[in-house]
This record gives sequence, structure tokens and C-alpha cells, in this order.
Amino acid sequence: MKDPIEHLKRQCLEVGSIAKLDVDREVSTGIPEVILARGKDAEDVYNLALHLLENKGHVIITKADEVHFEALEGIDAVKDFNRKAGIALLKSKECEKTILGRVAIFAAGTSDIPVAEEARIVAEELGCKAIAAYDIGVAGIHRVLPWITKVAEEDVDVVIVVAGMEGALASVVKSMVDVPVIGVPTSVGYGYGGGGTSALMSMLQSCSPGITVVNIDNGFGAAAAAYLMCKRISKNKEG
Amino acid sequence: MKDPIEHLKRQCLEVGSIAKLDVDREVSTGIPEVILARGKDAEDVYNLALHLLENKGHVIITKADEVHFEALEGIDAVKDFNRKAGIALLKSKECEKTILGRVAIFAAGTSDIPVAEEARIVAEELGCKAIAAYDIGVAGIHRVLPWITKVAEEDVDVVIVVAGMEGALASVVKSMVDVPVIGVPTSVGYGYGGGGTSALMSMLQSCSPGITVVNIDNGFGAAAAAYLMCKRISKNKEG
Amino acid sequence: MKDPIEHLKRQCLEVGSIAKLDVDREVSTGIPEVILARGKDAEDVYNLALHLLENKGHVIITKADEVHFEALEGIDAVKDFNRKAGIALLKSKECEKTILGRVAIFAAGTSDIPVAEEARIVAEELGCKAIAAYDIGVAGIHRVLPWITKVAEEDVDVVIVVAGMEGALASVVKSMVDVPVIGVPTSVGYGYGGGGTSALMSMLQSCSPGITVVNIDNGFGAAAAAYLMCKRISKNKEG
Amino acid sequence: MKDPIEHLKRQCLEVGSIAKLDVDREVSTGIPEVILARGKDAEDVYNLALHLLENKGHVIITKADEVHFEALEGIDAVKDFNRKAGIALLKSKECEKTILGRVAIFAAGTSDIPVAEEARIVAEELGCKAIAAYDIGVAGIHRVLPWITKVAEEDVDVVIVVAGMEGALASVVKSMVDVPVIGVPTSVGYGYGGGGTSALMSMLQSCSPGITVVNIDNGFGAAAAAYLMCKRISKNKEG
Amino acid sequence: MKDPIEHLKRQCLEVGSIAKLDVDREVSTGIPEVILARGKDAEDVYNLALHLLENKGHVIITKADEVHFEALEGIDAVKDFNRKAGIALLKSKECEKTILGRVAIFAAGTSDIPVAEEARIVAEELGCKAIAAYDIGVAGIHRVLPWITKVAEEDVDVVIVVAGMEGALASVVKSMVDVPVIGVPTSVGYGYGGGGTSALMSMLQSCSPGITVVNIDNGFGAAAAAYLMCKRISKNKEG
Amino acid sequence: MKDPIEHLKRQCLEVGSIAKLDVDREVSTGIPEVILARGKDAEDVYNLALHLLENKGHVIITKADEVHFEALEGIDAVKDFNRKAGIALLKSKECEKTILGRVAIFAAGTSDIPVAEEARIVAEELGCKAIAAYDIGVAGIHRVLPWITKVAEEDVDVVIVVAGMEGALASVVKSMVDVPVIGVPTSVGYGYGGGGTSALMSMLQSCSPGITVVNIDNGFGAAAAAYLMCKRISKNKEG
Amino acid sequence: MKDPIEHLKRQCLEVGSIAKLDVDREVSTGIPEVILARGKDAEDVYNLALHLLENKGHVIITKADEVHFEALEGIDAVKDFNRKAGIALLKSKECEKTILGRVAIFAAGTSDIPVAEEARIVAEELGCKAIAAYDIGVAGIHRVLPWITKVAEEDVDVVIVVAGMEGALASVVKSMVDVPVIGVPTSVGYGYGGGGTSALMSMLQSCSPGITVVNIDNGFGAAAAAYLMCKRISKNKEG
Amino acid sequence: MKDPIEHLKRQCLEVGSIAKLDVDREVSTGIPEVILARGKDAEDVYNLALHLLENKGHVIITKADEVHFEALEGIDAVKDFNRKAGIALLKSKECEKTILGRVAIFAAGTSDIPVAEEARIVAEELGCKAIAAYDIGVAGIHRVLPWITKVAEEDVDVVIVVAGMEGALASVVKSMVDVPVIGVPTSVGYGYGGGGTSALMSMLQSCSPGITVVNIDNGFGAAAAAYLMCKRISKNKEG
Repeated sequence: MKDPIEHLKRQCLEVGSIAKLDVDREVSTGIPEVILARGKDAEDVYNLALHLLENKGHVIITKADEVHFEALEGIDAVKDFNRKAGIALLKSKECEKTILGRVAIFAAGTSDIPVAEEARIVAEELGCKAIAAYDIGVAGIHRVLPWITKVAEEDVDVVIVVAGMEGALASVVKSMVDVPVIGVPTSVGYGYGGGGTSALMSMLQSCSPGITVVNIDNGFGAAAAAYLMCKRISKNKEG
Repeated sequence: MKDPIEHLKRQCLEVGSIAKLDVDREVSTGIPEVILARGKDAEDVYNLALHLLENKGHVIITKADEVHFEALEGIDAVKDFNRKAGIALLKSKECEKTILGRVAIFAAGTSDIPVAEEARIVAEELGCKAIAAYDIGVAGIHRVLPWITKVAEEDVDVVIVVAGMEGALASVVKSMVDVPVIGVPTSVGYGYGGGGTSALMSMLQSCSPGITVVNIDNGFGAAAAAYLMCKRISKNKEG
Repeated sequence: MKDPIEHLKRQCLEVGSIAKLDVDREVSTGIPEVILARGKDAEDVYNLALHLLENKGHVIITKADEVHFEALEGIDAVKDFNRKAGIALLKSKECEKTILGRVAIFAAGTSDIPVAEEARIVAEELGCKAIAAYDIGVAGIHRVLPWITKVAEEDVDVVIVVAGMEGALASVVKSMVDVPVIGVPTSVGYGYGGGGTSALMSMLQSCSPGITVVNIDNGFGAAAAAYLMCKRISKNKEG
Repeated sequence: MKDPIEHLKRQCLEVGSIAKLDVDREVSTGIPEVILARGKDAEDVYNLALHLLENKGHVIITKADEVHFEALEGIDAVKDFNRKAGIALLKSKECEKTILGRVAIFAAGTSDIPVAEEARIVAEELGCKAIAAYDIGVAGIHRVLPWITKVAEEDVDVVIVVAGMEGALASVVKSMVDVPVIGVPTSVGYGYGGGGTSALMSMLQSCSPGITVVNIDNGFGAAAAAYLMCKRISKNKEG
Repeated sequence: MKDPIEHLKRQCLEVGSIAKLDVDREVSTGIPEVILARGKDAEDVYNLALHLLENKGHVIITKADEVHFEALEGIDAVKDFNRKAGIALLKSKECEKTILGRVAIFAAGTSDIPVAEEARIVAEELGCKAIAAYDIGVAGIHRVLPWITKVAEEDVDVVIVVAGMEGALASVVKSMVDVPVIGVPTSVGYGYGGGGTSALMSMLQSCSPGITVVNIDNGFGAAAAAYLMCKRISKNKEG
Repeated sequence: MKDPIEHLKRQCLEVGSIAKLDVDREVSTGIPEVILARGKDAEDVYNLALHLLENKGHVIITKADEVHFEALEGIDAVKDFNRKAGIALLKSKECEKTILGRVAIFAAGTSDIPVAEEARIVAEELGCKAIAAYDIGVAGIHRVLPWITKVAEEDVDVVIVVAGMEGALASVVKSMVDVPVIGVPTSVGYGYGGGGTSALMSMLQSCSPGITVVNIDNGFGAAAAAYLMCKRISKNKEG
Repeated sequence: MKDPIEHLKRQCLEVGSIAKLDVDREVSTGIPEVILARGKDAEDVYNLALHLLENKGHVIITKADEVHFEALEGIDAVKDFNRKAGIALLKSKECEKTILGRVAIFAAGTSDIPVAEEARIVAEELGCKAIAAYDIGVAGIHRVLPWITKVAEEDVDVVIVVAGMEGALASVVKSMVDVPVIGVPTSVGYGYGGGGTSALMSMLQSCSPGITVVNIDNGFGAAAAAYLMCKRISKNKEG
Repeated sequence: MKDPIEHLKRQCLEVGSIAKLDVDREVSTGIPEVILARGKDAEDVYNLALHLLENKGHVIITKADEVHFEALEGIDAVKDFNRKAGIALLKSKECEKTILGRVAIFAAGTSDIPVAEEARIVAEELGCKAIAAYDIGVAGIHRVLPWITKVAEEDVDVVIVVAGMEGALASVVKSMVDVPVIGVPTSVGYGYGGGGTSALMSMLQSCSPGITVVNIDNGFGAAAAAYLMCKRISKNKEG
């Protein structure tokens, strides 16, 4: 939209007094409204999902726990729950997806998989092809090398690196690929620098230019940014 | 390079015992070797610049201060110094540049300009068209609106948002554009949350998906990431 | 009281050895004694409530959890419990309230509602008219605009802004209203800057003059300050 | 302005490419545009001041240091510099001021005076009567008592408490006055909790309801908020 | 002991491989060995208590929780459990105590009582007369005044001030008494500065000379230090 | 003073508008008014010293730097400046001092001497006999042993331990003496835990009961607390 | 391996998509692959253990909790579980071990025993003789002295010091032994500096050269480093 | 020394009242007394050096700045100053050195060289052969590979890794060598995680077992620990 005043006039969908769903968010921002379950009552999540489903036909819910999943079971829709990743997908009906681009998702350790899976599922749901490889941290750098080859072979557009103890995986990967890398620190690790702090710092301090970062455990955010890049590339390809 | 072992065999340019310049970095990583002057002696920066100039024909030096600029004056080259941004550009001779993509650079306040200029100059030097607008922070949100129009009109590929006191400018901008946004917090601001901490946190906590972040004051890093996105888009366009 | 020595001579109500209730606090400070349940045994809260009820005829209890509510059930009084907000109101009998002023309460997200409700109920209980609007954060700034109109239409005296992830809502609101704004960060949000830190910093760093802040999750404190402003305005109106 | 879109259409005054002065800020926000000198070049401050002076006829510059004062000497205007407070006032001509309300400004120690003076001068400049008392910290609580009397006698509308080592002065004052108190921590004090951290925390943790806080050393912010309260009171008085 | 080598030769009581009880600690350090239950298994605490009881005839256990109390029930001794304070006292038989000095213990709020009680019980157990007053924080400073009188009337030797939200109570008390004050911050309070941080900082930043501090929640440590002062005074009195 | 209201009625000595000297502080708090030079202008320190000298006949100034010393040179008095400790003593005339007690002052390293000297001079000036031993840190524990003997031989009343890198000296000393120990961390040391943080934490975490602590670099505070203990002992001795 | 490319070509053992076990890690790094159970599902730990057992014949699992132990019970192997230390050892069959060197393991307090035991078991399992002594902290320094004698008598190669409240035990031990000391801070201790922070800082700030440190609670890491030193010594001995 | 009491009886060399030099430290701890210049007056450093030189015949001074070097020029000795590393070596006469072992010293960037050189010079001075390689950080991992070969070829006993921005170099190196690695974070790097914090955390969080760490910028400490390992190896070799 060229006139920003248009953005400021778009309507919201009132869900009782608890929320104002931004149903036209995709037009303005390129990314559909998504429900973050963490910190919300099961009842609120249920209501938000129901309204969004009715209005848009598909819903992505992130950071859901067992209580949220249980409430969502009650909704009549095509449902796809990934409990490890904390993601619920609801659709009125199955539908085809166009592939806009290719995203590689690398996780340093086994404990980083839930966040990596969050990124993978969201990226796929938004319309990217995802190539995932897990447990390839810098303590055994040989495990990452075959995947560098894969990045070139598959003509990957952007790489998401998920790591909780050694954020340096982002640096090492970036030093061998010529596409943007998005780092996702995870809240894995204990002691000094635990909870994702060390990984976040390492990624921000990286000497490999071309890395940008999202917040700790924000797999969704990384996927959203990767998707926007793919979409932009795709748009230009078509044009 | 498909075979990662190739990356691991590339040669360095030894500069005495002080450095091993990665002259073929661009092939592996998509971004040429750049010299970070901060924390280095003027003499070391001079030597690094000289070797890189001889080898590659052009040099970008960031975070330079007056002492560095003085030392660099002694080098025989086409020189372009931007003291506010702390950037020195050295070239054997002037040359044409191809435009790979378009980057908008928005700065929240007057004090954020040095970092924004660092991003602008690097982006332009790497081959992007830069559209810059400064002093458009959220305390007067009307100032940003004309620039949202500009993003659409100029078909901008990626927006860099530079802000030191209120990182929320990244959120607000992202809520009105459908391209990726890269946030650069700056070390402006005093008291609790000063030195860039508040801005970095705001950008990482943002509820607007599609924002990724570089470290405080890292204008160069944002430009490098933006450039890689543009390059990827450009490559697909040609293809 | 003009003579401060008078303040220093006011009597307390001893509740066993556990507390000295400041029953005349309202005369000195403009705000009645209120019971903060968090960190206190259910038994202690019960005793404090009982003594205060007998002495003053009405009691406000904040940050109560289920255990506290259960204990308070045993008190013979007109009771009004809001479990989402963690507030219990006890009165010997229902009574009329005079409206001293108008307070708008804006919450950025659905997860911020408990703290916003704490502020709303306390403000109303102290004698203000409250105008509440929730889920209007800066990631979709168009949602806040109708409420700016409301502030003018309703001749609001002070605005309370409650936000946990993006404290910038306070800045954005303040940039469009000419009355004082009180910011309340909430302990919503995870990762770096989570738990309310980012929101508190953003509000303190704000470039919109006219914002003051209370501590994270302190909805009661914001309501108390807003009430004092309204009371002062009201007093002058009458005078 | 009832229609928020009006706020979003107001014009800025371009000062080269370095700033967009919000000359109609007062209409939207109740407070005129003010120049924060810290972090800006003397030349930039000079240019901003000149433009604002021409456009509005009066300018407030805060956090100025000797270099800024020197540059401002060159401007042709009625000048009033307070070097201890770091404030420069420029006016095309002297003019009358209406008194909108009364603000008491209390500072805990001698080292807190610069910030207290910043608050005092700004409050007076915006149109409040200021009553100042310095060196009255809680380590000698008897020193504050006569000023509590003063608050009542002068019918003060709001009290600003400035303190760097013991923020508790805000609590103690608030426990004896029935008007709002605004706390300003200062970056005085060394060791653990130094630099204003302890004072900021104390004020936010205070058990005296009715206190709100601005950031460390932000005397201007406290004065602006106090002024808005006075203005609101004054408006109602007239009405 | 004049010869420090003597200190270094004293024997320990081995409790399996889990501990080396310093049964002669009192001779060297003036304070008997005490068992900190927190962080230890119930079984370990039981064994430590049993060995110490057999060897010394009396045992003080601090920071005990319900699991510890249950295990200690099994020991055959004169038992005195204070669950609020988390203290268990075990003795082979009741015995007389000499009063070495007088300690006043002031707590700011109701939530600070557990730590204050820990200090009171330990001080009494070691041989001091304790004068306790709770809920006398600086938000209602008149509540503390009668207790200042008490300090003088009872000829108190040292005052312990326990406070979690406003550590300034230590400053205010110290400004009116001429004996040493020991501050004990407590882990009460939420938000910024919560968990005792604000109180600890306030006490360390205090402008009232004569205050020293122990760690957050360390009621035992304050009592031990107060006891040593009383003992020293008592020794001189006799001499 | 038994009646606290008396404390609250004591008069101050106004020094212009910059300070209210608490000339009768000694009666209320046991410690005379002392001037902290850090953070104050030389002119202000000069004026405060002059007023206090005229009123009380003797002045202690702490944390003075060269600029303060120069200003104080201009005062006509018996002067004693210790530049390493940053202390200036001014007296109308030399006078006898009574010895109230004995304080040992131990410093861990050579870099801790300035703070230790601050403590020593203040303790002596207030009326204690000081026994000082420097460079006796735990990295060479044999160096401290002869001084443990000294504590017993000289019948020391309280030990002040000054340490910047290893605060454990306080624990080790306390484990061999039966009098109270006051810890003073110093801002010596670099890297993680530097600036006194590690030493402050170590002293607060100490497992040797009987240690209390003052803030980083606060040699004056430690001396003041030690003096109050000695005074209390001395009073009882006489009585 | 002299050619680092060899390191980069070693194969991994794929465990579903959850892990890539580095079965030849010992050849490259000197230490076998070990499973960190914390942060992993019981099912994942079970699968990793099973694969590693089949491939290597023995498995070390650290930081296991009851849920992990239960899952591991199902594996058919010689099992040795130490629940206090959180360690599970699995072997196809019992086998002889060669002793490569001698490691002393000292723990400051009873609460530090779990981490010390983790270090002891891992060191023994890797092939060292372990000499353990617990509850010998600096608050009773005489308890450590007999163990200094032991270090010399047993010709210990390296000492591991485990401490949670007073990290200074590492300094004190190092000041009396002439072999390397490895410090392991533990997450014991509460209040300021709790959770291992104070101990980690103390060990890093230590003035006793020859101390190196691992992260908080990382008993395994200390044992691994100690083992490498012993192995190096042993290798040279044989040669 | 088998009897620890012997350690506790060793004599010190008194240097005025400023220091007690531990001249027999080498016997007890394996490492000679070294002078840390930082934080000490030039005069004190001069005196300490003079006394130590007279007593031991050789002196190592670390963290010296220009003022210290100037003072040391006045001492009559064989002098060797390395200004980049901040090290001064003084000897009565040149003497042969035995080589006890081999230490590799790797630095990630050019800015890390001063700390790496501190480690190198100290290691050589104590009696190790040093193999140094600088500017080999993980952003260009191919630069480190030839040095892994070197470690094997030269039969290196221990590797010191010095890194300020990306501490992961320690992990990557450790994953390819089978000897102990000592990490030294440096105070290089700006923004979040700057000043060495990120590097320290990365090294402590490393998933490569066998890494231990010293404090930020502590090149001396790393060299001392490496030397003790070499000495132990050497001793066994001889035996």
C-alpha cells in the first residue's frame, strides 16, 4: 500500500474485549496474523483461534502447551498439532501451497530441536521449502560440512541457524555460504551464559558479516523473516 | 562452492605476524574482507589497508577515528573519508558500480546519524541504491509516514532501521511494509536502558514479525546482510 | 496537614504482632491503606482484611491468588472478587461513589489484561471513571487510533498504558494526547528483555515527554497515581 | 485534536538532512519541541536552535555542555544559560508567563542539584511556579519536615523528588503529602547500586502509592510531566 | 587463641564422608557451628544434627523446610521448631542462658517477618535479649518513632533492620540512634529491584554512617554479628 | 535522645542554597557530619568545609581529589592532607584524643591501600587506636597469620578487612578471630567480577558468621561502624 | 591426526533425525562422546544411549534425573547409576581400567557433593585415580590442611576444587600445591552472588596463578580436562 | 612440601608498609612471585621490582603502562620491555633456560595480540617453548587448520586460545586436538556481549570437553597454568 494512511485505517476483528485481531495484517506486513499461545488462557486461545479460522480459513498457533492443545481439540477443522514444536495448525480445508523459496534450518544440538521445528513448520506453512539438519554444532565441525554442500546444491535462499550453547555455529556456517543467515539462540544451557544469553551474544558479536538475529527461542520470528526474503526473491523472479 | 573442503583450503594473505587477510572471502561468503579499525593501532590499520589495496584494488575501513584517518592519508589511492560515519574508502582507481537492489535506511534521531551513515555508505559501496531518512522516531510518528510511501514507490527490497532510544521504530515501520526489516540499535541514550540496551531489547521483543537484528552500532553488519538479500534477489531476477 | 509532626503522631491499628495498619493513611497521603496479598500467608491476609474492614468499612486486596481468595470467602461482607486481576474488594455495605476524574487504560496485548484490569478496578474503586481498551499494541498501530479520539471526546484526565513486550505504546500514545501518561510495564515476554525489562526500559527511555512510570506489573500503583491527579483536578474544579 | 489522523498529518520543519523539527508538537502533545544537546555536535545543536528560534520564538536546550554553550553564544537572541543545570534558554524577546500551577522540587543531596535545577528551570519556563529545597535526604529526615509544611501552605500541585543515593526520599515525602510525587533518580553514588540504579529501584519498589518515576537524570522529563498535570488542573479550574 | 597455628590444628568431627563438623568453632570464632539446612538432603541434615547434638548438647538448624522438620522429629531431644522462621532448636536438656546484650530487630513489612524471626530466635539462642517490632516501614514513618524511644529506654546495643522493598528503613533508623545498625535485605518485592536487590543496594548506598549489611535473607548472619558485638561489650563490662 | 521527635526538631546550618549541614548529627547518630567531596564542585566543598569548621572546630573530608585539595589549601586551619587516601582533616587547633577502642585494618593487596588508609585515618580521627597490616591476601595465607596473633595480643575490638580481588580474606580472618569483622570490597580487579563485584559477593556469601559489609570502596563507612562498636564497648566499660 | 582435514572427514552415527553421534570423537579430541541428559526427553536419551552402547560398548550419561534413570533401566547392559551425582554408566561387560594419573577432588561444603561426585565418577571412569575430600571450605581452613599433605604424599597430578559459596578455596589450595588446580563453581548459595556467580567470579579473580575454571556445576568438564592432563603426563612417562 | 604448616611458616620480604613479597612462593606453588603493575603507583612498582630483583635475581612485571616502564628504566638490570604486551622483564644477568614443555598460543584477531603476547612471553620466561599463531578466528576457519597440523607435529602439550569476539575458537580448536585447551577471553568487541563477556561465556558454555578458562585479558594466568602442566609432564618424563 503506497499511502500509509491506508494502513492506519484497516479494520480489526473484535474478539470480545480480549483482542482485536488484525485480519488484514498480511496485506500491510506480508505476514498473516499468528496466535502466540504462551501467556494466554486456554479459553482465550480457543476463542482467538475460532474467530481467526472463521475469518481467514487457516490459523497458526505457536508456543502452545498441553492445556492449549486440549482446548483446541474442540475446534472443528483440519488440525495438525506438533507437540514438540508447540505448534497447532488449523484449516477449514486442506489446500495447495506454492513454494516461494528454499530455507535451510540447522540446529546445533538435540535440545535445540523444538525451536528448530517451530521454524521449520512455520516456514513450510508460509510457503517455503525447508531443508533441516540437526545436531551439527561446532564441537564436531565435520558434521556441518555435508550440509554446506546441500545449501549450494539446493540453491538455498536463506539459512536459519538454531543454537543454544554455542552460537558460533552461525559464524561458521556463514563463513561458508554466500546467502543471508538468521541466528536463533535457544534457552538451552546452564551456568554462566545459560538460558540463551551466550548464544545470543555470540551471534551478535560474530565476525562473519551477513548474520542477523531474532530473540531467544523465537523460531517463528526467524521463519517469518526468512519467508519475507523468499517472497521478495520470488516476486522479482516472476517479474 | 559446493564442496566445503574448498572453503577450507582457500589461501590467506599474511600481513607480518599481525593478520591473515582473507582475500577470497567474497567467493565463499558473498562479502569482501573489510577492516574494522576500532581496537587496532594506526600502524596496523595502515598495513592491513595497504596489503588489501594492493591485492584487491579497493578497501573499506569501518569504525575509524582521527588517528586512523591520519595514518591512512599516507596511502596513495583514491580516498573517500566520511568522518561522521568513521568510514574510509580506498581504491586504486574509480570504477562503475552495478545496482543490485534498493535499501531504505531510517534513523530515529539526529544522534543516530553516524551509525545510519555507516550503513548507507557500506550498502552503496557494496552495490545497493540507498534511500535515507533521518530523525523520524516514534515520538512523532507522523514524520515516518511519508517514508512508508517511499518504500512502496521505490520498490525497496529491505529496510534498515537505526534507533538508540526507542527501538520501536522498527516495529512501527515493519507494521506498514511487507519487506524484511533489519534493526540496528545505537549506543545513544543514558540512564536505565541506555547505551543501546533498551533499543536492542525492544527490537528483539518486537511483536511485528519480519524483523531481524544486528548488534549495537553495527551499521556495517546491517548493510552487509541487506546487501546479501539484494544480491540474492538480483541473481534470481537475472535468472 | 500543614504540620508534619501531625503526620508523625498518627495512630496505627495493631494486628497481633504481624502488622500495624495505617488506618488514617488517607488523610496524610490521599490514598487509603490497601493490602498487598503476594508474599503473605492466607491467614495473615484474612486477619489484615478483617481488621481493616471493621475499622474502615471497605478493603482493597491486590495480587491475591486462589489460596487468598479462599480464605477471604470466610469473611462476612459484600464481596467482589476479580480472579483474573487478582483483586478482592470487601465492603460492610454497598455505597455510592463520586466520580473525581476520568482515566483511560490501554493495554498492548491480551496477556497484559490482568495488570490492566488491576489498574481499572482500583481506579474505579478509588473514584475515577475508567475507559479501557485492550490489544492495541504498536505492531498494529491502527488499532490505537480510535482510542485517541476517545481520549479527546471523553475529556480524559490521565492515560495509563500497560504493555509487556513493546513499551513503545506509551510513547506513541503520548505523542497524540496532551494529558499525562503513566506507563505500566508487565512481566510478559520471554528471551532477552523478557519479564518486563524491555518494556520498563522503553518507557523510561521514551522521547515523548510527559510519561512517568511505575514498576513492572504494578497496576495498583498506576491507578493510585492517576487517582491523585484526578483528585487534585477535581479539588480545583470545585474550588 | 479529536481526529488522530490530524496528528499524523502535521508538518515538520526540515533542518538540512539532520532533523525534522516537530514545530507543532505542543498542539498534539501539550509540550513544545525541546532540544536535547547530549550526543549532538555543537554545529547541529546550533542549527536546530536557530531554526526553532526563528519558527517558534523561544527555545529550550537541555544537557548542554561547554562546547554547546559556546556555539549557542553566536545566536542573536535573549539568552539565559545555566551551566550547572546544562540548560540554555533562547528567546526572540522577553515575554510574560502565566502561572499554571505549583511544583515543589526537593533534592536529597548537594550532588543532586544539577538535575534538580534542570527540573526547576524547565518547570518555570513551561509556566509553573517552582518551590525548591535541596540537601534534605533521609539520612537527616528532620531537614525535610519544614518543607512538608510548605507543600501544604503553598497548595503545591505536584512534588518532584530528586535523589541519587537514597531514593527513599520519594517514599518518605509521599507518606506525608496527598498530591502526586514524581521521582527522579540521579547518577550520583558509587559502588554497588551506584550511577542511579539504587535510587531508581527504590523509587519503583516504594510502598508509598502515588509515586511515578522518570529515568535517571531526566529532570526535564519530570518537569514536563508535572507541567502537564498542572495544565490539566488549571484547565479545569478555569472551566 | 593467640597462636593462629592453634586454630589450624583444631579437630573436626567426621560425619560419614559428607561433612567435617567444626565442633570447636566457638573457641576460634566466637560462634558455635550451626547447620544450614537449605540445599541439603533431609537425611544429611538429620545426621549432622544427631552428631552435633551428641557432641555439643545443643544444635541450631536454619533455613529448614517441612521435609527437614519431619526428619528432625525423629531425633530424641528437647525440640523447638519455628516453621515461619525455618528454625529448629535441639537440646539434650533445657538450660539457663546468660544475657550478654540487647538487640532490637525491626522489620519493615509483614512479609519480612520470617527473616526477622530467624534473626530474633538466633540472637536469643546465642544469649541476647531481643526487642522486636514489625511492619514499621518508611511508607508510614510514624510507626517507627515509638521504637526509637524504646532503643534508648532499653539501652539497646545494636539494631538489626530487616527490609525487602524499602531498605531505607535502615537509614532512617540509623539517623535517630547512636548504636551500630545491621541491615538485612529480604527477597520480598517483585519487578525491577525485586528479590532483595533494591533493598541491598539501598542499605549499601545509605548516607547514614554506621550501617553494615549482610546478604539477602541472612537473618542468622545478622544475629551472629550482633551477638559478637554484644559479647565484646559484655566482656569489657565484666573486665 | 529518648524522644524521637527531638531528633526531628534539630536545626541545620544552611550553606547558601546548596546544603543544610547537620551540625548536631553526632548527638543523634553518634557520628559527626563528614563531607563527601566526590561529585561536588571544589567551590562547594570549600564552602561546606568553611562553615563546618567555624561551627564545629574540626572537619573530615573524604574522597577528595587534587582539585578539592587545592581549594581547601585556602582555608586557614591546622590542615592534614592524605592524598593517597583522599582525606583532608581541618581543625581550628590541635587537640587531644581519647582512645575508645582498638580497630585492626587488614588489606589484601597493595592496590587496596588507599581505601584501607581512608578507614584507618577516619577510625583514628574519631578516637580509635588503629592497627594496620597490608598485602596479606589469601593467595599467600601465611602472611596473615602473625596478624591474627596481633589481634589477640592487642585485644582488638573489631577487624576491618579491605580486599578487591579476593574478598575471602574476610572469611579466613573471621575463622580465626572471635570479634566482629567488617568487610570493605574495593574497586580493584579487572575482567568478570572486577570493580569490586567479586569481592562484595564473596563477603556477602561468606560461610564465616560474624561478618558484615559496607559498599565498595567505602572505607569511611567501615570506620564509622567500627567506631560505633568501640564507643558502645567503651561506654559499658566506664559504666 | 596430523592432517586436520582428516578430522573433518570423520563419520557420525545417525540416531534418527535427532542426533549425529560422534563415535570417533576420542581419536580427534582425546575424550569419548558423552551424553548430557539435561534438556533431553527420556526417549531421546534412551535412544542415544542404546546406539552408543552398541557402537562403543560403554556409555557415560551426565545430569540425568529420575525420569532418565527410569528409561535407562530398560537397557540391557551392566548398569551403574549414581543418583546423587546424576550419572549413569552403561557397559556391555565389565572391563579392567588402566590408571593414567591421580586427581584430587575437594569440595567446600556438603551441598557441593553432587557436583564433586560427578567429577569423581567421570575421572575414575576415564581412567584416573580419584582422591576425594568434602566439606573443607575456607570458613574452617584447618580442615583443608591434612589434604594438602595428601596431595604431596599421593603425588597428585591435578586438583579439582568444587565450591558454591566461597570460591576462594581454589586460591587457598593453589597457594599450597605446585600442580594445576581446576575450579568448579556450584549453583549453591542464595542472595546476591548466589547460584554460583560469586564462586565463579572468585575463582576467575584469584591471585593464585595456576587456576583455570569450568562453568558452574560442570563437574564433567573439570574431570575431562583433568583427564587430558593426566593422559599427557602418562604418555610422556611411558615415552 | 608435605607438611602444610611449613607453607604457613614461610617468610615474606617486607617492602616498606606497602607489600609483603612472597619470595619463596615458587617452592609452595610452583610459580614465582610476579608483579601486577595495573592499579599500582609507578613508585610502588619500582620499589617492588627493586626488592624482588635483589632477592631473586629476576622479575616479571605484567600489565605495565608507559608510566610504569618509565620508572623501571631507572633500575640497573638486564631489561626487556614489550610495550604491546605490557610486560617488563628484569634480570641481574642473562641466564640459560631449560625447556619444560611446548605451548601453542592461538589468537582469533589482530586486536587480541597484546593478550596473546602476554601469554607467550610469560610462558617462554617460565621455561616453555611457545608456538604462536594470530588472526585465525572462526569467521574464516580455514586459517586455523594448518595450525592444527602444527600442534601434532610439534607434539604440543597444551594450547592457549585467546579470543575477544568469538570465543568459539576454543571449541573448534579443542574439537581437533587431544591435549588440554586453556581459553583466554579478551576485552575486545563492543555492543551487547562486548568487553569479553561473550567470549568468556562461549568458552564456559563450550560443548568440547577439555577446555578450562581464565579471566578476561588474563594472559599471564593462562601461561602460568600451562607452565604447571608442562612442568608436571616434564617431571614425570624425567622420573
